[in-house]
This record gives sequence, C-alpha cells and structure tokens, in this order.
Amino acid sequence: MRDDEQEGESFALHCPRPAGDGGRVKLAHGGGGRLMQELIREVFLCAFDNPHLRPLHDGAAVPFAGGTLAFTTDSYVVRPLFFPGGDIGSLAVYGTVNDLAMCGATPLYLSAGFILEEGLDLATLDRVAASMARAARAAGVQIVTGDTKVVDRGKGDGLFVNTAGVGLVPPGMTIGPGQVRAGDRIILSGDVGAHGVAVMSVREGLAFGGDLASDAAPLHEAVAGLLACGAEVHCLRDLTRGGLASALNEIAAAAGVGMTIEERAIPVRDAVRGACEVLGLDPLYVANEGRFVAFVQPDRVEAALAALRACEVSRDAREIGTVGAEGPLVTLRTVLGTRRVLDLLSGEQLPRIC
Amino acid sequence: MRDDEQEGESFALHCPRPAGDGGRVKLAHGGGGRLMQELIREVFLCAFDNPHLRPLHDGAAVPFAGGTLAFTTDSYVVRPLFFPGGDIGSLAVYGTVNDLAMCGATPLYLSAGFILEEGLDLATLDRVAASMARAARAAGVQIVTGDTKVVDRGKGDGLFVNTAGVGLVPPGMTIGPGQVRAGDRIILSGDVGAHGVAVMSVREGLAFGGDLASDAAPLHEAVAGLLACGAEVHCLRDLTRGGLASALNEIAAAAGVGMTIEERAIPVRDAVRGACEVLGLDPLYVANEGRFVAFVQPDRVEAALAALRACEVSRDAREIGTVGAEGPLVTLRTVLGTRRVLDLLSGEQLPRIC
Repeated sequence: MRDDEQEGESFALHCPRPAGDGGRVKLAHGGGGRLMQELIREVFLCAFDNPHLRPLHDGAAVPFAGGTLAFTTDSYVVRPLFFPGGDIGSLAVYGTVNDLAMCGATPLYLSAGFILEEGLDLATLDRVAASMARAARAAGVQIVTGDTKVVDRGKGDGLFVNTAGVGLVPPGMTIGPGQVRAGDRIILSGDVGAHGVAVMSVREGLAFGGDLASDAAPLHEAVAGLLACGAEVHCLRDLTRGGLASALNEIAAAAGVGMTIEERAIPVRDAVRGACEVLGLDPLYVANEGRFVAFVQPDRVEAALAALRACEVSRDAREIGTVGAEGPLVTLRTVLGTRRVLDLLSGEQLPRIC
Repeated sequence: MRDDEQEGESFALHCPRPAGDGGRVKLAHGGGGRLMQELIREVFLCAFDNPHLRPLHDGAAVPFAGGTLAFTTDSYVVRPLFFPGGDIGSLAVYGTVNDLAMCGATPLYLSAGFILEEGLDLATLDRVAASMARAARAAGVQIVTGDTKVVDRGKGDGLFVNTAGVGLVPPGMTIGPGQVRAGDRIILSGDVGAHGVAVMSVREGLAFGGDLASDAAPLHEAVAGLLACGAEVHCLRDLTRGGLASALNEIAAAAGVGMTIEERAIPVRDAVRGACEVLGLDPLYVANEGRFVAFVQPDRVEAALAALRACEVSRDAREIGTVGAEGPLVTLRTVLGTRRVLDLLSGEQLPRIC
C-alpha cells in the first residue's frame, strides 16, 4: 500500500488536479457535461493515456489480427429499471451496440456484467435478462461472456448492468472527431429528448400523454445504410447523456472546429417539448438512446439523408447545420433568428438516465 | 412494457425456475458456489444461450477477422477498496488479464467502467486509477475505452469497477473444460487462500502477521511459458471466488470426469492456515487472484512444472492430482489418508472478495 501512495503522489505531480470545492464525486460527474469531461481527462486519461484511448470517442478502434476491432463499454444505472419504451436490459444492449456502430463497426459480441443488490427479486432479473436477449437478437449480436456480483443490501440499487462490445471495423474506415472538417454538413437522425423525458416522467410520477416513450433502439442498420450510400462520413456520435448539445460540443472541441446549428431544423415532439417545459429541461441537452448525428461531406448530403430515411429508426433524419473553420463554439440560430452559444452543461441535468 | 411481460412469461415457460425460498437475490448468489452456478444457468444461460457462452469458461473464444478472439468481463465490488497486496484497481486489471490467459490468449486491450457513489473522494479515485495504470503496464495491456456513471449517495458503495478484456488466441489453440480427459494431471501454480484471507483480515480488523498479503498478480506470462514448453494443456482455470475446490468442481461437471486431489500436495502458507482457523474458513474454498490450475497430458508433466517454476508468480507450482473417468466427483485424499468429497459450497463463504 505504501507503493500505491508513492505512485499516487508522482501521478499527482504529472496530472495536477485543480483544487476543487470538496474534491468529492458529485452527481454531475456522471451527467455528460463539463464536470464529467474534466473527470475523464484529469483522472482517467491522465492515468491510462495511450493513442487508442486519447480520441475519447464512443469506442476505441484498435489493431487486431491484421484487421481493426472496435471495443467499447458502458455501465447502466438507470432508475427506474423499467420505463416506457425500454428497460435497463434493452438499454444495456442497444447502448453498446450503438457505440460500436458510431465507430463504423459491425457489432458482433457483447459481454454482460451484473451487480445485484441482495434482496433483488429474481423475477426482475429474469425480465431484464429476457429483455437483453430480445435486444441482442434485434441487434444481431451474441452475449458470449458474463459475470455476476452481489453486494449487500443498501450498497447498491437493485441492479446495475455493464456491457462491453466488440465489432469489426471494415478496412480503410476512419470515423471519429479528428476527421471532421470545415464545410461538413451535420445530419440528425430524428427527434430528440424522448428517452430522457420518458424516464423522468416515470421517476417523477408524471403523466404527459400516451406517446412519451424512450427512443431506445439499435442504430447499426441505419449506420450501415449510411456508410453504404457513397456519402463520405467523417464522424458519427450517438446523443446519450448530455444530449445533442453535449455531443456537438465534444466533437467541436476534439476537432477544433466551430458549428452552426438551425434550431428550426431540430425535431422535438410536442409531448417531449411540453414535458421539458414542466420539468425545466432543455430538449437539446436531454439524453437519447436511439438518435445520432453524422458529419458528412457536403456533396452527398442528399444521398446520406435518403439512406437514413430508408431505415425506420432514422426516418426523420434531416440536416441541422454546418461545420465552420472558426473556434470550438457551437452556435444555435434560434427560431427567432437570434444566435446563442450551445455550451456544455456545468451541472447535473438528469441523473441516472442510462 | 406489456411486451416485456409477455416475453418474460414465455421465457419462464422455457426455463422454469424451481420455487425457491423467497425468490430473491442472496449474497451467496455471488459467492462462486452452487447458488451462483444455478443463477448463471437458470437466468443468464437460459436467456442468452449460444454456442460461445455455453462452455461457461473464464472467457469466450469467438471467431473474429479470420482469427480467434478471447473476450471476458468481470465487475469488481471488493470491500475494502485497498487491502494488503492490492486494491480494487489492480484486481480489476489482473482479474480480467487472467481470464484471458485462461483461454490461452495473449491479453491485449481492456475496457474500464466505473460506477461511482456520490461523495467518493476524488483522491481515492486517483489512487485506484494510478493502480490500474500500473497493473496494465505490468500486464502488457492498454486500457483503450471506458465509461463513468455516478449514483446517488446511499445507492452504491464508493466505487465499483468493471473491466472487459480482449485477447488473441493463437491458431489451433483449444483450451477449456471440454478438453479435459481421464489421465490428465492437475497442476496447481502455487499456495492457496492468501487473497481472501488478506481481504477478510482488513475487513474484520484482524492482524495475522506481516506476510498476509493478497496473491493478486497477472498470470499471462506463466501461462505463455507453460503453453510454449511442449506440454499438451487441456484446460486452465484461475482460482477466484470459491477457490480451488469450486474451480475443480466446475471443470469436473463440465467435462463429466472425476478428480482425485492430494491434500498433502496443496501448499497453504502458515499465516493463511492460521487465519482460516480463526475465521472459520477452509483454504480450499478461499478466493485467490494469482493462482490457477492446469490440466495437462501426463507424459509432459515435468516439463510443464519446470516451465511454471521458471516464472516468479508460479515458482511453487506442483502436481496435486489426477483426472479419473468416473463421475463428476472431486475427491480429496486427506493428510490422514482418508477420503472426502470436495463439493461446491451451497452458501456464501466470503462476500465481496473481488
């Protein structure tokens, strides 16, 4: 243990942490905004730094057996476990499948790790496992390895699930924030905010009308169609924690480019908009689990849109903005014609949304 | 959600669960004994069944890009986070590296998923991350992708870590319980019980003397040496939850063979034996994090032992028994010359030991 402390100190010298208020984990560290970005960079990237991790994309593309393997992981702590349109099981499968798809990979295999709290109903676990199996079939992947841990009552929250996934990246495929360049058009695959609002509505015991269901869905087929249509795709990103605004900001920062987004072009369903008003949320920052943005060369935008609209999950795809050369700011042209900066959120918006 | 319930019911028809007492998760479901085996088979194998998962080995060997990929995952919930000889971070790296090694694979890449409890000291997280980085360097792997979730105070226990790992399986390598056959010799890589006893001694506030430290260590080099020595290796298994006795039982059941083990041949350090007596534990059931068994063809046992003893982590390797044709029983020949059946434990021995 002395060794640990020494290494901890020398590590601290290399990656000094700004003296924060309290130096403790806050809910916002998991929220997809600025604090989470800081935590990832200051703790994990500092400690684990290597060329494959550094892009901080949805997954890593690494050389393997002469080809390229996409590798990703997510833990799921959503509360409640079941919500309109999905549950922690389908989320754990689709979320990881989608992260692989965002690397341009064909999803193949998943692992599943369960942290169960003593006292959990086995019937609940059965339901979640059945949902994962159904989602895996829908996404064309196999769950090939797993692990189960049990923690004592009061030290967990029923059920946490981790999935990791591996997929095959086709030869020559380079998709990531580093490929984004000025002039790229930004395509959004569908309406935003439904997942977060659906989960929050159950959690808060609110009823906003019948069509409020999570958008959780596998995106690999929409991505495959897009990649096959001949459009040059530079980057893909699914819009999970922190929503559309956070995803755009992360990519803008990583690519060192600016973006201009048309608020008018971003679809938000009426029920979602209404619920956001009641809950005090901005739909552009609300988590989705079946939506993504694509950065494509301007000359084939129409082909890209047609390819996406041919797939049910992205039938409402539309162009929402462009990439500019200047700065890392993401600017929203509002429906009123004014401009405002879409920034990373500093605080927590929706805890435990995935 | 109606769909979920329907699928849950039809799933239940295919995999009927015996009416258990309470139908709730118990600590013993995570203990590595009989209840955990039942949970894995009745819930997860039933739901996710596929040929790659079915062997229930430490990891899955799956076809990928014309080669074979080993894929594994483990969540870590050890309490306390730091203990003599290791911490949750080094454990999370070595545990997954070792599961890959047990597939005969060269470990290459890890993912890291963190579930943080609100209020966790960031200094603790720094220490764990530094330990993971150091362990990854020692094991020759890169942590290439990760995820962070935060749960509200009282809904976690400081820090849980999940790692998944991928490794490359050399062409022609088939290692697994299905390869074990009558006549195989069983080699144990070193003394047993140190990890579990080291963790329990801190947790219970007991002091058993200076040399009680976890055996946690990466095993891939010992395995590589063994595989290169010309001995025909049929199966490898690291001795984690449930210890030596549970690992042997799992393999005996999977291979449909019996085993006879010589108690005299199993090294247990004096400090571990003494601590086990105080704690009421059987060292053969106590978790290790740097020990494994190898099932090898009888004609090259000496070469196998020499290869293992050349590696520091397995310098005390020795032959402890043989595989017989009859039944799935594991029989221990005690130091007194009597025989007793080494069974799977039904209850929980050491909760949250990894």
